[in-house]
Amino acid sequence: MRVPFEQMQAEFSRVFQKAGMPRDKAEVCARIHTETSRDGIFSHGAGRVVRFYTYLKDGWVDAHAEPTLHKAFGAMEIWDGNLAPGVLNALHCTDRAMELAKNNGIGLVGLRNTTHWMRGGSYGLHAADKGYALISWTNTESCMPPWGGKDTRLGNNPFVMALPTENGTVLLDMAMTQYSFGKLSTTRLAGKQLPYPGGFDVDGNLTSDPGAIEQSMRALPIGYWKGSAFAFVLDLLASVFSEGVGAPAMDAMGKGSCTGCSQVFIAIDHKRISTAEYVQELQNTLESHIQSAATAEGVGEIRSPGAGFLAARKDAEANGVWIDDGMWAEICAL
Amino acid sequence: MRVPFEQMQAEFSRVFQKAGMPRDKAEVCARIHTETSRDGIFSHGAGRVVRFYTYLKDGWVDAHAEPTLHKAFGAMEIWDGNLAPGVLNALHCTDRAMELAKNNGIGLVGLRNTTHWMRGGSYGLHAADKGYALISWTNTESCMPPWGGKDTRLGNNPFVMALPTENGTVLLDMAMTQYSFGKLSTTRLAGKQLPYPGGFDVDGNLTSDPGAIEQSMRALPIGYWKGSAFAFVLDLLASVFSEGVGAPAMDAMGKGSCTGCSQVFIAIDHKRISTAEYVQELQNTLESHIQSAATAEGVGEIRSPGAGFLAARKDAEANGVWIDDGMWAEICAL
Repeated sequence: MRVPFEQMQAEFSRVFQKAGMPRDKAEVCARIHTETSRDGIFSHGAGRVVRFYTYLKDGWVDAHAEPTLHKAFGAMEIWDGNLAPGVLNALHCTDRAMELAKNNGIGLVGLRNTTHWMRGGSYGLHAADKGYALISWTNTESCMPPWGGKDTRLGNNPFVMALPTENGTVLLDMAMTQYSFGKLSTTRLAGKQLPYPGGFDVDGNLTSDPGAIEQSMRALPIGYWKGSAFAFVLDLLASVFSEGVGAPAMDAMGKGSCTGCSQVFIAIDHKRISTAEYVQELQNTLESHIQSAATAEGVGEIRSPGAGFLAARKDAEANGVWIDDGMWAEICAL
Repeated sequence: MRVPFEQMQAEFSRVFQKAGMPRDKAEVCARIHTETSRDGIFSHGAGRVVRFYTYLKDGWVDAHAEPTLHKAFGAMEIWDGNLAPGVLNALHCTDRAMELAKNNGIGLVGLRNTTHWMRGGSYGLHAADKGYALISWTNTESCMPPWGGKDTRLGNNPFVMALPTENGTVLLDMAMTQYSFGKLSTTRLAGKQLPYPGGFDVDGNLTSDPGAIEQSMRALPIGYWKGSAFAFVLDLLASVFSEGVGAPAMDAMGKGSCTGCSQVFIAIDHKRISTAEYVQELQNTLESHIQSAATAEGVGEIRSPGAGFLAARKDAEANGVWIDDGMWAEICAL
């Protein structure tokens, strides 16, 4: 079904308040979840509302906690998230990184001891809306084997890059697994195969069968050994830059859903060294360049980073935000 | 054959001087090429010596040029490479980024109008040797189709992350294509297939046949659509942060080999906010964690980022640096 943006946000906010969250905080979290669904990323928007509600109720996320400054030097800061809502911690640290960038051109904020940030792209969009470029990532508990291994030992560690332009935000928001477990599950339930291999089955054969990968837990890193190495380095650098922890400690804690994770926010005030006109020329040129390629067999469209969510957003703005009927009923019944 | 490090460096330096490079510059470039071969990356070490010699002779690289400061704000600088040797420009900008990081915790240097930096990992190692973490990337001329397209419109845009530790540098040095064209060529010449699909053939079928990919020029981005998006954003951000150009302008120029490319160097002085002991603990913990996974069928080894080149280096230090007999003869005959 389709629900108007404001109605969906109000409903999510009501649910979060019911779990003990102060109203102002609940409204911000509800806005991020609603925007995420509006942009077509249902799994991390409406799809996480009930789970977030449960975490609040169970005390895994502290609705009343606030991030506190842990360390600072020059254009770098470390904040302790104090297990406050991950969305609020991440927004706060994106703001801090922008403030540092405003004064120094670039600013880095490490965030330790935080909780699930939902859609990583939210912070790229937040920074871009204020005119900043952002490079950001999070580590997570293990959900993917390292290359050469069978057991999950690395997180999927979403990595974000964002740049504001007149045509909307150029946004990369990319996890290290080829497919999310959500995608595996929905593809299996639809009785379909993945378009390309997404992992190994229990016997170590590359497979496009989502159920076989859910069974083996051997999700494929993007680029095979490359994504495995990238995930390793992202995990380590997130914990180093935040004096936080990585997948091993989160796995030992056993809570899952990024509880206790570490994040990095690097904001860049590129306007200080480049003009908006030149940035626009660069984007237009690159966009035209890729669009000038002949389209591949059966694909039909060459899409630049960010174009997908901007198209989804346009649709949602015209027709309301999509949500699964059952999920909406479940949320309204809370 | 095996050649002692000093002898190989001296020979490369002689060749570069013969092409008109001043001795001090030739020795630095020769060191980087030799170190690259020592670390097992033959394609970008000894394998690029003759080509670099040719570029110097043809004037595509200006042996006498020096990078000049273009703009500066806070912890950010842009340098113009003036088409000087890419290795020297990149080392200079890594040094500048570290100097900015020393004072601000983090520093960003954009480099425009430069030439091929050879092995991107060299600058990660250079920064790590001085105690800094580095995030760095370059754009390149097009060598890979955008996702959904048939024609090459995006660079493979190598991306580097490095962190110094007591066990050596943790190094990610990753191009956006699943396999380099060098790898396709050597695999084809050996009459072998790629271990995993590396591109599409002319009919749009995913293939592990290196010759079919060389013919179609349809190399696969890592993670399919993800690597395509990542390459797009890296190209754009490199040109934005350096007021430089991207693949479209390089393609139009038609020289290839990264002539005129843009690069980014972000150095982080993590020692200001984290102790060496804690960094070491984090690395040891993560390394033990991935090594605790059962090894996959037919792989036998779980390798962390940087372990590969450190093993190659150890071998070279004991037995000399490997070089193809014919290549060595060709270089010595120049």
